[in-house]
Amino acid sequence: MARPRLLTQPSHQQVSRSEFEAALGTLRVDLLNMQFDLQSADFSVLVVIAGTDRAGCEQVLDVLQAWMDARHIESTVYENPREEEEERPRFWRYWRQLPPRGRIAVWMDAYATLAQVDDLMGRLDEAGLARRLRHIRGFEEALVDDGTLVLKFYLHLPKTALADRLRSALDDPPTVLVSSNDWTLYQAYDSAVRSGTRVLEGTHTKKAPWRVIETDDARFRDLTVAQTILAEVQKRLRHEQKGAKRELARKDYPSALHEVDLERRVARKTYQRRLGECQVHLRGLSEWARAEKLSSVLVFEGSDAAGKGGSIRRLTAAIPARNYRVVRIAAPTEEERVRHYLWRFWRHLPRAGCMTIFDRSWYGRVLVERVEGFASPAEWDRAYDEIADFEDQLVESGVVVRKFWLAIDAEEQLRRFKAREKTPYKRHKITDEDYRNRTRWDDYAKAVDEMVARTSTEDAPWLIVPANDKRAARLQVLEAVIEALERAHSG
Amino acid sequence: MARPRLLTQPSHQQVSRSEFEAALGTLRVDLLNMQFDLQSADFSVLVVIAGTDRAGCEQVLDVLQAWMDARHIESTVYENPREEEEERPRFWRYWRQLPPRGRIAVWMDAYATLAQVDDLMGRLDEAGLARRLRHIRGFEEALVDDGTLVLKFYLHLPKTALADRLRSALDDPPTVLVSSNDWTLYQAYDSAVRSGTRVLEGTHTKKAPWRVIETDDARFRDLTVAQTILAEVQKRLRHEQKGAKRELARKDYPSALHEVDLERRVARKTYQRRLGECQVHLRGLSEWARAEKLSSVLVFEGSDAAGKGGSIRRLTAAIPARNYRVVRIAAPTEEERVRHYLWRFWRHLPRAGCMTIFDRSWYGRVLVERVEGFASPAEWDRAYDEIADFEDQLVESGVVVRKFWLAIDAEEQLRRFKAREKTPYKRHKITDEDYRNRTRWDDYAKAVDEMVARTSTEDAPWLIVPANDKRAARLQVLEAVIEALERAHSG
Repeated sequence: MARPRLLTQPSHQQVSRSEFEAALGTLRVDLLNMQFDLQSADFSVLVVIAGTDRAGCEQVLDVLQAWMDARHIESTVYENPREEEEERPRFWRYWRQLPPRGRIAVWMDAYATLAQVDDLMGRLDEAGLARRLRHIRGFEEALVDDGTLVLKFYLHLPKTALADRLRSALDDPPTVLVSSNDWTLYQAYDSAVRSGTRVLEGTHTKKAPWRVIETDDARFRDLTVAQTILAEVQKRLRHEQKGAKRELARKDYPSALHEVDLERRVARKTYQRRLGECQVHLRGLSEWARAEKLSSVLVFEGSDAAGKGGSIRRLTAAIPARNYRVVRIAAPTEEERVRHYLWRFWRHLPRAGCMTIFDRSWYGRVLVERVEGFASPAEWDRAYDEIADFEDQLVESGVVVRKFWLAIDAEEQLRRFKAREKTPYKRHKITDEDYRNRTRWDDYAKAVDEMVARTSTEDAPWLIVPANDKRAARLQVLEAVIEALERAHSG
Repeated sequence: MARPRLLTQPSHQQVSRSEFEAALGTLRVDLLNMQFDLQSADFSVLVVIAGTDRAGCEQVLDVLQAWMDARHIESTVYENPREEEEERPRFWRYWRQLPPRGRIAVWMDAYATLAQVDDLMGRLDEAGLARRLRHIRGFEEALVDDGTLVLKFYLHLPKTALADRLRSALDDPPTVLVSSNDWTLYQAYDSAVRSGTRVLEGTHTKKAPWRVIETDDARFRDLTVAQTILAEVQKRLRHEQKGAKRELARKDYPSALHEVDLERRVARKTYQRRLGECQVHLRGLSEWARAEKLSSVLVFEGSDAAGKGGSIRRLTAAIPARNYRVVRIAAPTEEERVRHYLWRFWRHLPRAGCMTIFDRSWYGRVLVERVEGFASPAEWDRAYDEIADFEDQLVESGVVVRKFWLAIDAEEQLRRFKAREKTPYKRHKITDEDYRNRTRWDDYAKAVDEMVARTSTEDAPWLIVPANDKRAARLQVLEAVIEALERAHSG
């Protein structure tokens, strides 16, 4: 794949006025028709506009809105992060703006521009830049794998052309907007090109390549961007996306579940004493975390009747209501179904200082969706990396992440189903489906093994909690949460 | 309806420990079962906790989460408005937190508490307080009319009980949380009671009455709140809500459409000159508005083929992409359908400095939903007041609001349908339904008359734009937007 290049000397690609006018008539009709067809397609389009030519970027954005039907474009100019964005991982603002299938989003001054500016300003060391670029690649790859067509344009104004632009602004009233940024850019031009090149090269991938467009000729610039978008979307509309058939390298993962002693028990008396101690301790830590704006994300997974609800209630009983939120994950809504499966978890991320408890989570992708066949093998297989990247970003932004698998055996589950059938709590009603799910026990065990092996990291570890004894499980969860917060406290 | 009263002397209602324990067992099972039944009900429950006893409010919140299934409660403690909330009308933060049907939300420190504090601090004059209370009533009434069960508790700590609490905090390590706020409250107790009474009386309505609960006995307090919630939800679950059958006082409204000269025409040459002038003018105003953080909301309505899209494009062509957003309103999504119909418009409100253009809008409720029978007469009849209240809040928060009805006659529409059948733009395809809608022409005209008569205000006026001639319509829209911004500019 050819490296994207930023030339200092313009290559002077030009479009004459008559060529431009001739092309424009059909182009606009084709763009509108493309948008119409896209509405019923099962993919979304993300157009990223970046580059040193900021006036050019703005003009392209305006032109795209004028030539297409602005009612079907969601364009965003990212500005300095706002308070609610500062309090969450860097990519939260991008995830929340994801277009649904059938629509086009155009983004200016998004993550690539910011990475370039941060690099130019010396705000990133080597490792920081590498990490940033890795997150960008991960983000774009997740979207492309999900079917999004990602089209990236880098609008590059060669130095000589910039000089001409500045010179003409000195002589005459300028015909294009020239700002003080342009003067600054001129003075730091070579460094800006170096930073731009680093970002371009580090995020130029087969799935989401950059297209570098020189912008000294506005007609060439506008036509090229619009025609590229048109051609790429049309191509994608014509050809069904090749089913990403990849052979999954099946391998065996160490058994996560067989190593724990499910029978570990705690006596009632010990339990009650420790529960009280833990809850007092946790309450204090939660107030400290709130004051320090330290967020945490706790994930609860486990088979039916493993005791997730009970463990969560022992946690929340200890914590003031204003300091936590429980997010119960059920079937996705319509707005969630038309976007990447991680979108609905990003949208629930809390602001600083809050504990968010997920009762089931994004791991559904590699558990129920895998086992029941709701996700294709390619989909759930790539989910491990996507999840790792998601959690890495949480950790990077300072969030404490802990994941609990409550482990019971099949006999214990059956006992609990029988007991529930006699309980006065309606929400504990057992249905035929609950019994049916039990036939998949071994498939789930395999899925858990792979999940734990591929997504447990030092900062976002899985804890396998033996849960045949509810008291033992609840205490272990409480102690683990306390330990995690203590670690953040002293760290 | 009895006035809610805040007594200085406690009435000493108490629940003994044994009574409490005896009640609690069945209460908790009943609460869980109630939540289970609620999940499949078609209404939501909003519990508002307010009052001078802040420690008590927090404890009640914790108790409700502990006794019920916290996974099905969405509790919010409202803090000082954040940046993104400050930039929008006061009730935005409440609208965005509305529970969907089938769920319970518990709110603490919400609008009533804030009104009391603002009054106490002298931040509101008489008119300001009256307006605030009117908005609260309007908000709650809209929810109740939509089926939400609104349960409001005012937790009142009598002065003598507060004194006891403070005294015991001096003597011993306190058993309840005592904060400096409580000392402040004690000193300003009488004023706080006066402000509280004003807010209570001003927002105590038949649809959403206050329940004042004295909180010197925690067991009495917790049991009373939980039992009230249980009883009210159960009652509502048992009885279908009485169909709000009210006789609509039908009356004739002045004809909005017959008075305009649909044939007003503008020559091509005049049009092109004025269009250019207007667009340059508007561009400047939009940059000024952005810098001043002045938002505007423009609503476009009109029959099919009236030229909404074309008028909107002439506007957006003049404005830098970063300064506007077009929101196209089609059928509501699943997440929108399970909430009040205005929710989906509140969620699209822009932050400061942006122009939001609604291509169809909340007026669908009193246009297509009325005419096609998607909304019941009671629903669309009350929508006029709800809309007026919504727009009043926009205006109050400094948003420029203008509403355009593009008016064409039936012959012109038919001509345009025929022309569209030959256009190369697919999105202009005409379907049988478009022709079918034409049979309702007179019903729509009547709906427009009533809409204009009941929702046109000085600050949020309707403009009936004769649109048989597209050029005339587009210019008139541009000029009206310019005039509105100019007025804000000089005002």
